[in-house]
Amino acid sequence: MTTSSTLPSSSLATLAHQTRKAARQLAVLPTETRDRALEAIALALETHATEILAANQLDCETALAEGLAKPLYERLKLNAEKLKGAIAGVRDLSRLPDPVGVTQIHRELDAGLVMQRVTCPLGVLGVIFESRPDALVQIASLAIKSGNGVVLKGGKEAIRSCEALTRAIHQGLAQVGIDASVVRLLTTREETIALLKLDQEVDLIIPRGSNAFVRFVQDNTRIPVLGHADGICHLYIDQSADLSQAVAIALDAKTQYPSACNTIETLLVHQAIAPQVLPDLATALQDRGVELRGDDRTCKIINLASVQDATEADWATEYSDLVLSIKVVDSLADAVLHINTYGSRHTEAIVTEDRQAAAEFMAQVDAAGVFHNCSTRFADGFRYGFGAEVGISTQKMPPRGPVGLEGLITYKYQVAGNGHVAATYSGSDAKPFTHRDLGIA
Amino acid sequence: MTTSSTLPSSSLATLAHQTRKAARQLAVLPTETRDRALEAIALALETHATEILAANQLDCETALAEGLAKPLYERLKLNAEKLKGAIAGVRDLSRLPDPVGVTQIHRELDAGLVMQRVTCPLGVLGVIFESRPDALVQIASLAIKSGNGVVLKGGKEAIRSCEALTRAIHQGLAQVGIDASVVRLLTTREETIALLKLDQEVDLIIPRGSNAFVRFVQDNTRIPVLGHADGICHLYIDQSADLSQAVAIALDAKTQYPSACNTIETLLVHQAIAPQVLPDLATALQDRGVELRGDDRTCKIINLASVQDATEADWATEYSDLVLSIKVVDSLADAVLHINTYGSRHTEAIVTEDRQAAAEFMAQVDAAGVFHNCSTRFADGFRYGFGAEVGISTQKMPPRGPVGLEGLITYKYQVAGNGHVAATYSGSDAKPFTHRDLGIA
Repeated sequence: MTTSSTLPSSSLATLAHQTRKAARQLAVLPTETRDRALEAIALALETHATEILAANQLDCETALAEGLAKPLYERLKLNAEKLKGAIAGVRDLSRLPDPVGVTQIHRELDAGLVMQRVTCPLGVLGVIFESRPDALVQIASLAIKSGNGVVLKGGKEAIRSCEALTRAIHQGLAQVGIDASVVRLLTTREETIALLKLDQEVDLIIPRGSNAFVRFVQDNTRIPVLGHADGICHLYIDQSADLSQAVAIALDAKTQYPSACNTIETLLVHQAIAPQVLPDLATALQDRGVELRGDDRTCKIINLASVQDATEADWATEYSDLVLSIKVVDSLADAVLHINTYGSRHTEAIVTEDRQAAAEFMAQVDAAGVFHNCSTRFADGFRYGFGAEVGISTQKMPPRGPVGLEGLITYKYQVAGNGHVAATYSGSDAKPFTHRDLGIA
Repeated sequence: MTTSSTLPSSSLATLAHQTRKAARQLAVLPTETRDRALEAIALALETHATEILAANQLDCETALAEGLAKPLYERLKLNAEKLKGAIAGVRDLSRLPDPVGVTQIHRELDAGLVMQRVTCPLGVLGVIFESRPDALVQIASLAIKSGNGVVLKGGKEAIRSCEALTRAIHQGLAQVGIDASVVRLLTTREETIALLKLDQEVDLIIPRGSNAFVRFVQDNTRIPVLGHADGICHLYIDQSADLSQAVAIALDAKTQYPSACNTIETLLVHQAIAPQVLPDLATALQDRGVELRGDDRTCKIINLASVQDATEADWATEYSDLVLSIKVVDSLADAVLHINTYGSRHTEAIVTEDRQAAAEFMAQVDAAGVFHNCSTRFADGFRYGFGAEVGISTQKMPPRGPVGLEGLITYKYQVAGNGHVAATYSGSDAKPFTHRDLGIA
């Protein structure tokens, strides 16, 4: 089977259609078969580990020769331990409850006429990811678990690794009799563009990459996109904050992983407490290598030449780096207004001992995550206990925030009758509906 | 307050932003206040009934003078009974459970660190509807019930009616101290175009109108759209069907309301049963004024000059009228393939006494609704017991199918700790999460 090659978009449509057909078969397989497929894939990855690592070694050598940036190289590099971790992830997934076939509503509409809302797969996912080859294993196994087909587009620099991994996955699928075209690998940028146009064949696009890339995808497809382009998160230190807590949370939320989307970019501090907390906090942040930019009041309080003036652009910037803008606000309401104006609706936190202030903040701030007395860094599918994270969504409509397997399923309404027709329930002598909720098994 | 006027798009943005601000206040009001607002609106509509009906009378006279098409005129016409029905709908809504503030997940992440997923309003809805003035009452009250602001755009022919209704709604809101700008009325086509561009202020567009109009909206906005452009539904009569049931369901599904989106456009009949069922069914359909178009085998079986040959275009057409295309298929699998190829994923039905065939059909057909031995006309929010219908969605991602209040809400993750930082849970001596589900009140 072809795992990669540059294709004109019409051929890509044909391949994607094959994936859709294969996905329809996968969708109706019992839980047990999909879980056995995951086990077979784990085993095939173990069996072919040497071959996979050798392919990755070649990718890495090419990357070195071509001067790939160090962070990208680190993500590309697959060692025995990373591969083992990815394989363990596949087995973990096989033990999670099946998200497909769950009855959400079970209702009698009238005697003998019963409606059920039952979860089912979305169909075909289009996933575009960066250089990390282990992401391919995670995504393909999430798709199989949830009964979806998947068209994967990996980074060009990881082509040999992705092909080796896909070969092993295909072998695992074949062993349990699943059509291998449920998992399809693309490798060129031209194919990415063509993929975005296949709204008849692909039901959801999941882009994993830079903000600019996600925005490009959002602007160039009619297919729904799961992802977020920006992560402009805030920490607000209220006048009633426990100061040592505030300092610890600020340090964690800014420095624990500066390039993560749930890292804070702006710190807001209530004016009543700013003179007490800002000088020490500024020193602690600078000790950890954080560059600070403050508004007028912040600069007066900190009074260090190393603190630059923050401009309007700073409030709207995701630094993704060890840079933090700081603003002194007059009130909780001002903090909320600033966040609702400049935030990207990702994750927003307050530190306060005042329960009423915390409740107001959490109700009024418009974001997927609203946190009280803890770090924004907890906004994550693994930390929420979702098992595996498909992506983080900052859109308003569900799925919102960290999205697990739930984001890969939808539902259908099944109605079963005994010759029931709508005419019975309309007109002057219309029969009423019973609308009696029945139990969910 | 201004209820209508043509505005340049910058002014519209300002108005929409006021609606967003007002909606943020509405969102945090207790259930009881939002329900009292609905009661006050119902009362204000009753108080101003004479004025509202007089305004509608003027709209109707203008419409007659301008030669408005009869179906549009019928929709525009508001009499005392229709208005009473709309007011009763507002009161019904006030008695439904609050969709806002419902805890969906309640989980301990670690000792003292608790995550809750709680429902909240989307923000601001943009609703574009046709000439029916009673739709305005329904939509505005759904928005208030769910804590959302709403920008309404009614048909130009209903301008006086919409203004009179909006005045009464504003009065009701003012009586309970709610900022009247949560409900905003626009009346010109230019404003519709401008509204579609306000992705910073509007969270969901709900277009109610022709398929062409919905498609226009989908193609001209980055805001999520709740709605469906096509309703190409099928009825498949299996070889094991109860024939009298099949005939009754086919007649209901085609003729009970031919212009509805859940009406069938194509009938598929298993070849083994086609000679028995088609002649009588064709006569019954023609007796009800249905024009028939058949494939070769159908035409041979029915053998009437009045049955036209169906072309490829027929399978992909929503007639929205008393026209039905008929195809004889060789098997259940062929029926499923035809539906998955030409259907619009709205509602699809099978008539069969064979439970296994029904189960296969319902599992394999890709549609929001899959029905067994009942009419497709049951695909409707009221009939499902959702209280009120916001729209019917044929997209894959939830909300799918008939959407009630649930489609107007989203959720946020609230995490509360006691100084918890992410660093504790990472690295070589990482503390494990407890991920213990707590009860939902």
